[in-house]
Amino acid sequence: MNPTNPVLTLTTDFGLRDGFVGVMKGVIYGICPHAHLVDISHDIAPQNIMEGAFVLARQAFYFPPESVHVIVVDPGVGTARRPIAVRAGEQFFVGPDNGVLTPIYEKAEAEGWPLQIIHTDKPEFWLKNVSYIFHGRDIFSPVAAHLAAGVPLEQVGTPISDPQRIHLPRPTQAGNRWQGEVVHIDHFGNVSSNIHRDHIAGRRVAGTSVGSHSVPDWVNAFGEREPGALVSLFSSIDYVIVSEVNGNAAARLGLQLGDPFEVEVGE
Amino acid sequence: MNPTNPVLTLTTDFGLRDGFVGVMKGVIYGICPHAHLVDISHDIAPQNIMEGAFVLARQAFYFPPESVHVIVVDPGVGTARRPIAVRAGEQFFVGPDNGVLTPIYEKAEAEGWPLQIIHTDKPEFWLKNVSYIFHGRDIFSPVAAHLAAGVPLEQVGTPISDPQRIHLPRPTQAGNRWQGEVVHIDHFGNVSSNIHRDHIAGRRVAGTSVGSHSVPDWVNAFGEREPGALVSLFSSIDYVIVSEVNGNAAARLGLQLGDPFEVEVGE
Amino acid sequence: MNPTNPVLTLTTDFGLRDGFVGVMKGVIYGICPHAHLVDISHDIAPQNIMEGAFVLARQAFYFPPESVHVIVVDPGVGTARRPIAVRAGEQFFVGPDNGVLTPIYEKAEAEGWPLQIIHTDKPEFWLKNVSYIFHGRDIFSPVAAHLAAGVPLEQVGTPISDPQRIHLPRPTQAGNRWQGEVVHIDHFGNVSSNIHRDHIAGRRVAGTSVGSHSVPDWVNAFGEREPGALVSLFSSIDYVIVSEVNGNAAARLGLQLGDPFEVEVGE
Repeated sequence: MNPTNPVLTLTTDFGLRDGFVGVMKGVIYGICPHAHLVDISHDIAPQNIMEGAFVLARQAFYFPPESVHVIVVDPGVGTARRPIAVRAGEQFFVGPDNGVLTPIYEKAEAEGWPLQIIHTDKPEFWLKNVSYIFHGRDIFSPVAAHLAAGVPLEQVGTPISDPQRIHLPRPTQAGNRWQGEVVHIDHFGNVSSNIHRDHIAGRRVAGTSVGSHSVPDWVNAFGEREPGALVSLFSSIDYVIVSEVNGNAAARLGLQLGDPFEVEVGE
Repeated sequence: MNPTNPVLTLTTDFGLRDGFVGVMKGVIYGICPHAHLVDISHDIAPQNIMEGAFVLARQAFYFPPESVHVIVVDPGVGTARRPIAVRAGEQFFVGPDNGVLTPIYEKAEAEGWPLQIIHTDKPEFWLKNVSYIFHGRDIFSPVAAHLAAGVPLEQVGTPISDPQRIHLPRPTQAGNRWQGEVVHIDHFGNVSSNIHRDHIAGRRVAGTSVGSHSVPDWVNAFGEREPGALVSLFSSIDYVIVSEVNGNAAARLGLQLGDPFEVEVGE
Repeated sequence: MNPTNPVLTLTTDFGLRDGFVGVMKGVIYGICPHAHLVDISHDIAPQNIMEGAFVLARQAFYFPPESVHVIVVDPGVGTARRPIAVRAGEQFFVGPDNGVLTPIYEKAEAEGWPLQIIHTDKPEFWLKNVSYIFHGRDIFSPVAAHLAAGVPLEQVGTPISDPQRIHLPRPTQAGNRWQGEVVHIDHFGNVSSNIHRDHIAGRRVAGTSVGSHSVPDWVNAFGEREPGALVSLFSSIDYVIVSEVNGNAAARLGLQLGDPFEVEVGE
């Protein structure tokens, strides 16, 4: 722990207009002046725990060891829900115990990594005055900054073994077909399923369908087809997606989160 | 002054699309390469001095001592309006002398903090070529970077005692009622009044009304009520606000800046 | 090369919602932990190489020497288009060889600066696993981080002399008139031509017209006229622009990229 240039990341549903993210950074620099701060996203839909969970989990494990990731999607702020700090493998996480870290727990469990979950119940690592409605500023940021500055995880609170979890949609298999759903639509309108390269384990994709649309054309890269073509391919984190080359597949096909997404594998 | 890891913040009405904020950071790093930069907001409504003033003042005093805050909401750029640098307590501010720092002056005066205001009229602390329309890049950023790098405030210009001020709306009291107005609507649609916890000095809030809507339900935290409930509570900086739990109160009630906001206190 | 506090900038068409920019920063800090990162813009219109080229070129040369600028507007990702790294004067650039750096080449050529272009074909400077669709994360960010950390440009690949270029619109002169076009509309609705102060070489501007609108009033700064006035002036990088004081000229006049923009010069 305690690298010379610790990295802290921030993921919230705060938007960037009001200065709520900026003030968290002010608090962090007051405690860990040599941190490097990275914004992952502040455009999580308000109170959308599932979206926050997905966005953070997709990016966190590309960060250097000992990075500390703060996530604040926190409709229960000020109630009995616990603030927690987590070690999963070589990464640290700080946020509310409302299930937003579920994919992090599952990743650690799947990989056999160390997983420690701490109820951050030691006020000496918080701001002096804690509001009822902005624990991002008053608890999560200072706790994360103390971790980045070298305080051992064990010191910031009390171990727990019953963290909240949310249900993550999982694909099912029937013969040659994997049935999943749309779990992310990105800035470009790329439509991501929850069907991973590992699910189909090296087999050829014979075609996909999403909503009521069949997308038979499988490619490696967008540039293999002309602008306007509808294609299926693996995303940058190896999920099956549907895209329109230089266009917006989600808008064109009228797709939304939760729509059915099916992958047919060949021999 | 001159911390090892100086923090500079930026608050502007520039948006993030054109690179105007990025180029200010390039100028700053050319002068103070070890600074840590924090964006407070770049989504101030164009030329809205009042909004810029509120957003910066709400966040600035959470930053470490000796932080330097640059604010650029500057419709008078290139005219006779003066560029200024200010010390208020342990924080520094750089921007146009158009009243955007009024809440900073008032805070320092209310707290009895040191308040120094300097006309930054020394071109040796500016870029060599100064445009008529982008003092954020050409004057404010380099002056702020020099301050962060350790140049004493007194050296960057000439003291003044007549800074421009804007009129900040203040609530009035009549018996058990405080009459204020809507001064901020945040990303979540929370509707903030200008009535502070200190105004009501420990008394119980018996109810609020905003626009033509009565909101009798007073809570400490959103999570005390079900999604969709309309509640009143203290904001994270202790102003009385009206919120919809997991919803957008401003949109639901059709509220805007300047609408009347009343708080009734109990015994 | 190898400053104590190297600066890396990022310009993309990724938006900020999905964490694509954040993950690039995670990769960079894993390789160059002491870098300072600056966002120039992530709101380039998807796949708009021309816009990305203009936005980066306008800001890059205000950065400290040895800054490394990453640009990712990359519809050909995963195809035969080459990843490249470029030295132009004292600045470095990393991105796809699709013409997005054309204004950088032209600037270096016009100024007589050193210009080196390298095909970054050495996988030891990439991430271990390279996807077909996110070279921003897998190739450009790690190569840029290695450059910022002190690896000489020559080591990251093979010199080339045939980079892709795009056609940049240039104004033409007929007597007292310069005929250009709208090449940028900024956050404020300021409408920029491609006619530079150098084109008219010290002569007085007698008037401008853009689309079908004549704008005879030439000023130095917005604040010289009342809100609502339509004016022409030099932009902060010395191009002739049309603006509405405290308003949005592009929206008011219904202008878009490519519309004709004419400048008449006086004696």
